[in-house]
Amino acid sequence: MRKPWIKIPEKSDFSIHNIPFGVFYTEKTGTRLGIAIGKQVLDLVKAHKLGVFDHFHLEESVFKNRFLNDYISLGKETTNKIRKHIQSELCDINSILYTHMDAFYPMEEVQMQLPVAIGDYTDFYSSIEHATNVGKMFRDPENALLPNWKHLPVGYHGRTSSIVVSSTDIHRPNGQVILAQSKSPILAPSSKIDFELEMGFIIGKNTALGTSVKADHAEDYIFGKVLFNDWSARDIQKWEYVPLGPFLGKSFASSMSPWVVTIEALDYFRVSGPVQEPEVLPYLSFKGRKNFDIHLEVSIAPLNKQPSVVSHSNFKYMYWNMAQQLAHHTVNGCNLKVGDLMASGTISGKDPGSYGSMLELSWGGKNPIKLDSGETRCFIEDYDTVIMKGYCEKDGIRVGFGTVSTQLLPSNP
Amino acid sequence: MRKPWIKIPEKSDFSIHNIPFGVFYTEKTGTRLGIAIGKQVLDLVKAHKLGVFDHFHLEESVFKNRFLNDYISLGKETTNKIRKHIQSELCDINSILYTHMDAFYPMEEVQMQLPVAIGDYTDFYSSIEHATNVGKMFRDPENALLPNWKHLPVGYHGRTSSIVVSSTDIHRPNGQVILAQSKSPILAPSSKIDFELEMGFIIGKNTALGTSVKADHAEDYIFGKVLFNDWSARDIQKWEYVPLGPFLGKSFASSMSPWVVTIEALDYFRVSGPVQEPEVLPYLSFKGRKNFDIHLEVSIAPLNKQPSVVSHSNFKYMYWNMAQQLAHHTVNGCNLKVGDLMASGTISGKDPGSYGSMLELSWGGKNPIKLDSGETRCFIEDYDTVIMKGYCEKDGIRVGFGTVSTQLLPSNP
Repeated sequence: MRKPWIKIPEKSDFSIHNIPFGVFYTEKTGTRLGIAIGKQVLDLVKAHKLGVFDHFHLEESVFKNRFLNDYISLGKETTNKIRKHIQSELCDINSILYTHMDAFYPMEEVQMQLPVAIGDYTDFYSSIEHATNVGKMFRDPENALLPNWKHLPVGYHGRTSSIVVSSTDIHRPNGQVILAQSKSPILAPSSKIDFELEMGFIIGKNTALGTSVKADHAEDYIFGKVLFNDWSARDIQKWEYVPLGPFLGKSFASSMSPWVVTIEALDYFRVSGPVQEPEVLPYLSFKGRKNFDIHLEVSIAPLNKQPSVVSHSNFKYMYWNMAQQLAHHTVNGCNLKVGDLMASGTISGKDPGSYGSMLELSWGGKNPIKLDSGETRCFIEDYDTVIMKGYCEKDGIRVGFGTVSTQLLPSNP
Repeated sequence: MRKPWIKIPEKSDFSIHNIPFGVFYTEKTGTRLGIAIGKQVLDLVKAHKLGVFDHFHLEESVFKNRFLNDYISLGKETTNKIRKHIQSELCDINSILYTHMDAFYPMEEVQMQLPVAIGDYTDFYSSIEHATNVGKMFRDPENALLPNWKHLPVGYHGRTSSIVVSSTDIHRPNGQVILAQSKSPILAPSSKIDFELEMGFIIGKNTALGTSVKADHAEDYIFGKVLFNDWSARDIQKWEYVPLGPFLGKSFASSMSPWVVTIEALDYFRVSGPVQEPEVLPYLSFKGRKNFDIHLEVSIAPLNKQPSVVSHSNFKYMYWNMAQQLAHHTVNGCNLKVGDLMASGTISGKDPGSYGSMLELSWGGKNPIKLDSGETRCFIEDYDTVIMKGYCEKDGIRVGFGTVSTQLLPSNP
């Protein structure tokens, strides 16, 4: 790639190799699509008006839009060309953008919005370390993994209405909980609020009901990825989840990062995943490297305090990869829609410092985590902000996700 | 109410007391909103053009629409007035509709569409008879109900993309199943396809994230009700559902009836529900009668054969009512959106003839059900059509739901 003319700080998540898509708002522009480059946002409506996309023959409404869905629906053949064209314009001093810096805004001057209208949200449970840790704590330490776990990527449907973009405050939920030494529930604010370090992917192509996607074709159906914090109330969850799974312990909020990093931008960071033993059924088998080396970290910032990093993890640890998740999700004929969100489940590594939830980090509240400020945490306290970051880096090339940052406010009466 | 001038057959589900809303398509009109009256559909775009709704000052786009969502979003104060106004016009020979019978189409000449753009779909598990039957078969006959069941309306999130309207064929799903005497799964077409007799309600009003709906206000948030067949693959479900709940055993399809009967049309058919013991927590308590006496029946029609009724049930059997379901769903601050669908869970009564699924009717496949044709069924066979009907009737007043009818096609390769 040529050198960009636009200023990009070293170690920026939003290098010329990235070009992630998002939706932003300013009072002057209203809501519309943009891409992130260095510390700036390129206004795609302005770029379109300037003629940057003339040879694509696009309607302005694709960019002057509350969501990415219409853009994604153009199809990968087109959107990949548009992304490459933007990269090339940002490296070409003859580009009309070079003389129109008013099409760029400093990132801190725009308000990022939820990037997609999410149709359905599915949450998987695909980290073997996380599933094992939870199984040890909640079920049987000797048989932590359930019999189905290594045969299929376990998943469940989640609530879409309560998915919010980074920087949206959320409230501690109320719910039914069982106090120690009691058999009957009370209604109370949850006292075990947790984050779950996850990544999500956005579906890029519709399928018809009754049809399936092969694992080796699955990435054709993935537009891109985001960071995802699947907020959980462990006490509510524990009482409600047998037999039909998580419900109110999760549905009070989930947070996602605003910039959708395309799967193509991550191509350079492919790695092989863990060996799968026993061998998977043929519909879950795949060729090539389907895991991605994405460094992840979680910090907690108490009110008016600096954040302390509490976990370093990596997306490469996933036992089940996205291609397998999609092949499984559609094997029964379930249809996909552009904008559907599939999340990984908590991403934990082997080392306790890489666990992706407070439940695991504090081992069910038994081992409080010490923050830099000297405070300790077993779960998340009111006014804490939880910050997740993610990036790939290899041979001096960096592609990052920015952050998903959410403050927990006290429960409403 | 005065007598309608429009011809309505005796025992019609779509009496003058009903006026349910739906979305239909004809080649000539395209897709738009209508109401059902007797054997006819009133075209609401034509009625609007004729000036029937002039004093409501509505945009045509409310009626010329693929979904009811914009109409519902007008709010109950307006939509209740519109419904009453239609009733009154259909009884007034001075109505402009009286001389414009071209605004009505015979029901068999329109194609009914999915009536709402469903945001989120939640499925409850609120029939004590169903939960007890399933618990007896799958878990412990002595302790069939789990400890949480009588304290909260158990529910889970379902898949919206695969919800289809009545008359849409579906395919038998493939999935992982465990054959008898084996511990390892194979991929195969499900051999235990089942219906679940349910009713759904459509959310009529948005709420903000972090806020709750009180049980006594819950009905302000319900636009109306439909029949709902929550198709289930029992063998896929059994292997996958622990610990995170139903997933691919459900997400291959659910079917709903096309006409949304407003909660106001059902007001005359209120009854008290079962006594709840132990007493529920205060946020789940309510005043007045919140159950509804809705007769339900399920038939199976093998290919080219007449349907045989296999179950007679009633919505009044529900242990947890809709108001309690909504109060519980939002107690954690989870937000509602217009068009969200909440389904009841399988509606079984005490008597075996009132069980709402083949799983219960054939007791896990042990007692085949005899059809009028002489054939037997433990589960649903390829090319069978499953038909559900529902209606209220009291003092000569009838308000019905029509049918949800779905044919099961063989699995795709």
